[in-house]
Amino acid sequence: MFRSLLANNARYLSSAFVAGEPAGPEVKTAIPGPRSLAMLAEMKTIQISDAVQLFADYSKSIGNYLYDVDGNILLDVYTQISSVPLGYNHPELLDVLQDKENIRTFINRPALGVFPGENYPQRVYNSLLRVAPKGHTEVTTMACGSCSNENAYKAIFVWYRRKQRGDAPYTPEEETSCVMNQSPGVSDLTLLSFKGAFHGRTFGTLITTHTKPVHKLDIPTMDWPIGTFPRYKYPLEDFVRENEEEDRRCLAEVEELFERYNKRGKNVAGVVIEPIQSEGGDHHASPAFFQQLQRIAKKNGAALLIDEVQTGGGTTGEFWCHDHFNLEHPVDIVTYSKKMLVGGYFSLPEFRPREGYRIFNTWMGEPSKVVLLEKVIDVIKRDKLIENVKVTGDILLNGLKAFGKRYPNLVKNVRGRGTFCAFDCDSMAKRDQLVEQLKVEGVQTGGAGPVAVRLRPSLVFQPHHAAIFLDRLEKALHKMDNKV
Amino acid sequence: MFRSLLANNARYLSSAFVAGEPAGPEVKTAIPGPRSLAMLAEMKTIQISDAVQLFADYSKSIGNYLYDVDGNILLDVYTQISSVPLGYNHPELLDVLQDKENIRTFINRPALGVFPGENYPQRVYNSLLRVAPKGHTEVTTMACGSCSNENAYKAIFVWYRRKQRGDAPYTPEEETSCVMNQSPGVSDLTLLSFKGAFHGRTFGTLITTHTKPVHKLDIPTMDWPIGTFPRYKYPLEDFVRENEEEDRRCLAEVEELFERYNKRGKNVAGVVIEPIQSEGGDHHASPAFFQQLQRIAKKNGAALLIDEVQTGGGTTGEFWCHDHFNLEHPVDIVTYSKKMLVGGYFSLPEFRPREGYRIFNTWMGEPSKVVLLEKVIDVIKRDKLIENVKVTGDILLNGLKAFGKRYPNLVKNVRGRGTFCAFDCDSMAKRDQLVEQLKVEGVQTGGAGPVAVRLRPSLVFQPHHAAIFLDRLEKALHKMDNKV
Repeated sequence: MFRSLLANNARYLSSAFVAGEPAGPEVKTAIPGPRSLAMLAEMKTIQISDAVQLFADYSKSIGNYLYDVDGNILLDVYTQISSVPLGYNHPELLDVLQDKENIRTFINRPALGVFPGENYPQRVYNSLLRVAPKGHTEVTTMACGSCSNENAYKAIFVWYRRKQRGDAPYTPEEETSCVMNQSPGVSDLTLLSFKGAFHGRTFGTLITTHTKPVHKLDIPTMDWPIGTFPRYKYPLEDFVRENEEEDRRCLAEVEELFERYNKRGKNVAGVVIEPIQSEGGDHHASPAFFQQLQRIAKKNGAALLIDEVQTGGGTTGEFWCHDHFNLEHPVDIVTYSKKMLVGGYFSLPEFRPREGYRIFNTWMGEPSKVVLLEKVIDVIKRDKLIENVKVTGDILLNGLKAFGKRYPNLVKNVRGRGTFCAFDCDSMAKRDQLVEQLKVEGVQTGGAGPVAVRLRPSLVFQPHHAAIFLDRLEKALHKMDNKV
Repeated sequence: MFRSLLANNARYLSSAFVAGEPAGPEVKTAIPGPRSLAMLAEMKTIQISDAVQLFADYSKSIGNYLYDVDGNILLDVYTQISSVPLGYNHPELLDVLQDKENIRTFINRPALGVFPGENYPQRVYNSLLRVAPKGHTEVTTMACGSCSNENAYKAIFVWYRRKQRGDAPYTPEEETSCVMNQSPGVSDLTLLSFKGAFHGRTFGTLITTHTKPVHKLDIPTMDWPIGTFPRYKYPLEDFVRENEEEDRRCLAEVEELFERYNKRGKNVAGVVIEPIQSEGGDHHASPAFFQQLQRIAKKNGAALLIDEVQTGGGTTGEFWCHDHFNLEHPVDIVTYSKKMLVGGYFSLPEFRPREGYRIFNTWMGEPSKVVLLEKVIDVIKRDKLIENVKVTGDILLNGLKAFGKRYPNLVKNVRGRGTFCAFDCDSMAKRDQLVEQLKVEGVQTGGAGPVAVRLRPSLVFQPHHAAIFLDRLEKALHKMDNKV
């Protein structure tokens, strides 16, 4: 079906954003192939490598195509766990490193919080602040997604305690007790997170992560409130009433958790949530849910943190996924990383600590990534890549919905925003099998949660790539369907 | 005194490891100067900037000299909080980015745990494993020091619980409970850290950090045991008996903490310690202390983690500071970052989790840093920079000791290994004043703890730089002494 679309419909024959891409995927060996396996054996002697899928050839990879060391060429709709904004070896990014001044930025990494470089504020204006979420004018840079959340959580606790103190200075007792991990200097505050949430694997973020046991087993944690993120029935248009009821149920539980924890003196200082639960299985919630959640947080004097580490950067058809939600107020804190190349968070001015070194570390992000990000954002604007994401996302989603009718056990609950799409298989075994079969057909994708296949192409994934993807998916589905 | 040494003693006129350095510091304006202040005003509108000291010109900075945007040239003995191994703009590092293949590594950042690049295992052999601590053959890469410690802590808990379970698989109850932050899936294990310790500012590491209130106020934490790190009297040779008694007192407390926490069911799974407490004020402990600490940990079935984030990379005259301690056994886990350009940890094979994704994140470090590190280690070996650190460190330490006799209120408790040297002033006010006065004399240094000045030059800090530093320090001390 999609092969014919590809051949006959001009709409799918858009000119490529990245020159030099191959005509399509090409699979020559099993994946991982013999060279990947040999390297994996070598890697296993020096470090944990159980999650390695293949060894890539990053000198050959181009645009949407990931080349591996066995000569296989995969259409990459997973893009390094959603972290590659412009595909591989984008010529404009290669050019950044031809500039002598830029090269110096790559080898002189400063302690940004103490000795920033000459052009750093301007670089931040030209990159991060150019795409700041609505209502935001401040940003704090960090090295990765986990650190971004860790530090944003700290900023929330500091903000909440300052409100509680009525801006009074710390008491000597607070200062001495906190150093020994004791009250009153340390607080008993909590953050509310959601079942199925993923915010990172470091200790603080792990308290709020609730996806798989493998992330959390054996690690000490804290008793913080955990709400329920909606689980919708699809297609949405057929289950309007049920899904509204699901929103109400989840929001009532949030209110109840606020009351329960605040009453116990473990005040809920903030709510931490993904705009789409990604690692947990691509669970969506309605704009109305997020609007009401923001109201509940405000009513309770708590901050709302939206974690856009996986959803940010344009992949949902808006630069930030929460732009879809039409929220009443700017979000208090928005964290990012992955496609932004470097971590950090945008926060409203009231979340800025009053003292230096409250939010601090040696590197505080990295200027060389900001230099690359500046170019990435130039290209996103020049090539209208968000518009591309919308158009291509529609094609993807419609294609998946069509498959849903033909392969109801393999393609269920089709959902997505932009190219940030997913569907469920009716078991984990089938999902895993489908991801493998897709690799055989030349497509690198990934699972999410127990039964979902998630699509995370880069922003240069165009209609003709979607057509190729759908064609290969159709083959994989057809083969699996005949086997079952 | 040192000016004459510089002029007359051939020993101090070593040829420069980095070509193009100026003859000495040059201060033209107040620091921060007018341009730095203008940029700081700009930066303050977009992010927390209270710790910024100046804006640097990283295109002009060279070797041991940090140029700022006001045309000031500072001899840098602080090097971005001890994170610059070969000084600024080292020609060999600039060359790395002339190589087209290398450039692709800088713009195609992979999810290393899933899709490593072709040459990655070899790159790790040529860099990190080439300098692995004694007895180590495995390494896990991370993006920064905090993440390195966070993940190393997790590896310890996973290891300890596996021992407790006798290698039995997880129960279904453990698997379901942990996702909701509950026992038995999450553990009540603890790590023992030390007063004055600094291991990072993220939630897990912050539980073990005990330096300043500003790091810890308001942040929820856990009740983990906190021991006492020795506080020695100097000069060491005059207080042998007292300092041995201090070791005994601290070690007895460690044993008592093991007993107390284990009895309460909050088993101590590991001991986390810096070989020199750095941020806390450059506190040293004897080889005998560390040897005995290792024995106590072993006796209790607990891991010993030595945090070499600030001390690693050659700056103490050995590649790893704990090489000075003549320990009976390899250290279980050694964490690193800063001068290594990228974070991570070396661990004995038994600390490798049995399942993929136990220790994991999107980026798992960064190959481009490993490419740079490979070159850094080449240069360290070729130019015999560890030998240089030893020679230069002796000059520094002897110079400081001489000042200690002449300015007993401003230069006390002189101590150090290699060029990792420090001394105390007799008050925080005087220390802060001295750091400022040193800047006026053209030297960038930094404080540590309440009263210490810490020296953290790069590995290309040579005898002639030490002579210049001592000369400038002498001027600063003389001026302050006349004011007091």
